Amino acid sequence: MKGLFITFEGGECSGKTTLIKKLVSYYENKGYKVLTSREPGGTPIAEQIRNVILDNNNVAMTGKCEALLYAASRIQHVEEKILPALDKGYIVLCDRFIDSSLAYQGYARNIGFDLILEANKFVLDYLPDLTVLINIKPEIALKRMSNRLDKVNRLDAESFNFHKLVYEGYQEVLKRYPNRVKAVDGNLDEDSLFLETINLIKPYLEKLC
Amino acid sequence: MKGLFITFEGGECSGKTTLIKKLVSYYENKGYKVLTSREPGGTPIAEQIRNVILDNNNVAMTGKCEALLYAASRIQHVEEKILPALDKGYIVLCDRFIDSSLAYQGYARNIGFDLILEANKFVLDYLPDLTVLINIKPEIALKRMSNRLDKVNRLDAESFNFHKLVYEGYQEVLKRYPNRVKAVDGNLDEDSLFLETINLIKPYLEKLC
Repeated sequence: MKGLFITFEGGECSGKTTLIKKLVSYYENKGYKVLTSREPGGTPIAEQIRNVILDNNNVAMTGKCEALLYAASRIQHVEEKILPALDKGYIVLCDRFIDSSLAYQGYARNIGFDLILEANKFVLDYLPDLTVLINIKPEIALKRMSNRLDKVNRLDAESFNFHKLVYEGYQEVLKRYPNRVKAVDGNLDEDSLFLETINLIKPYLEKLC
Repeated sequence: MKGLFITFEGGECSGKTTLIKKLVSYYENKGYKVLTSREPGGTPIAEQIRNVILDNNNVAMTGKCEALLYAASRIQHVEEKILPALDKGYIVLCDRFIDSSLAYQGYARNIGFDLILEANKFVLDYLPDLTVLINIKPEIALKRMSNRLDKVNRLDAESFNFHKLVYEGYQEVLKRYPNRVKAVDGNLDEDSLFLETINLIKPYLEKLC
């Protein structure tokens, strides 16, 4: 693969969207081809699957079913959109990927990392070059969330305790994948967070050139 | 598990629906609790997933995505509907199960048995007690199909060659799982097919009592 595949992780309202927007402008201005995407979703088929997962009526959905749906959405996204872009030399910046499944379902919903990894077996061949984890305590994230309650979906509606578990889940992800996953400090102001991320990505870009 | 889990397999128009209807009447008359279901689908969530799979617009769907969607639909169906019924002592008669994925996708679509089995890893813990394969040459199935062209979906619209491959796939399934999968002759008239199936199921019912 000629491109560079970077994913962004973090709890609700950790600042991923803003950070990714800034990175796109920055790298495009430097002349790179940049593609952004997000999970769950990323392609029309993956979006359809996302709608099934996030449907508030689907309370009967089992953990294994949900894990497989995320995995199905993810492999479609990878094969249809991410791999072709990487092949053309793009920097692909993706909002959430397999580590969201590990933190949210595997850890916070307590269905286990092993089960998530089993469901995602096809995806493990296409792990990102780098995963940027925006590390932010749920106390602060919760404050941010109260400002956008209009965007509530099934996950946002979970209790504070759940977000605390997600945070713990991400610390577990950090421990397990220290080479691929790197934390940046989500308590920083937007510009400092941006600069910290730029510095983190720098060596990967040199590999790309 | 106290119940009996039987699945029915065969190419398009092999006569599964008619056979299952006759079996339901027969066993209910004998005093058994009988539950019928079908794949893909079987529960509202599994139906939603089925709709994504069979949507004619989803031509970009990759083999791995499709395999995971079938597996997601299947495990939801198993955990939400089949296992609770078996636990209550029901005879569960299910129209299609994992062997459809093996024959249609694994063999006919050439993505391989191994990939299907990987996608269905969670399902392998809940294989049927018996799988009845209605074995019928695609030449005959195709004749039957021409009588119900109104029910065409993405799979029905495939060429004759595809149905031939499905037939071959089922022969491969028979070879691989001789203890679980038993063939009945789909060329028989409805009543003879029914009687042959009753005889096949008999020893499993004795185990149930």
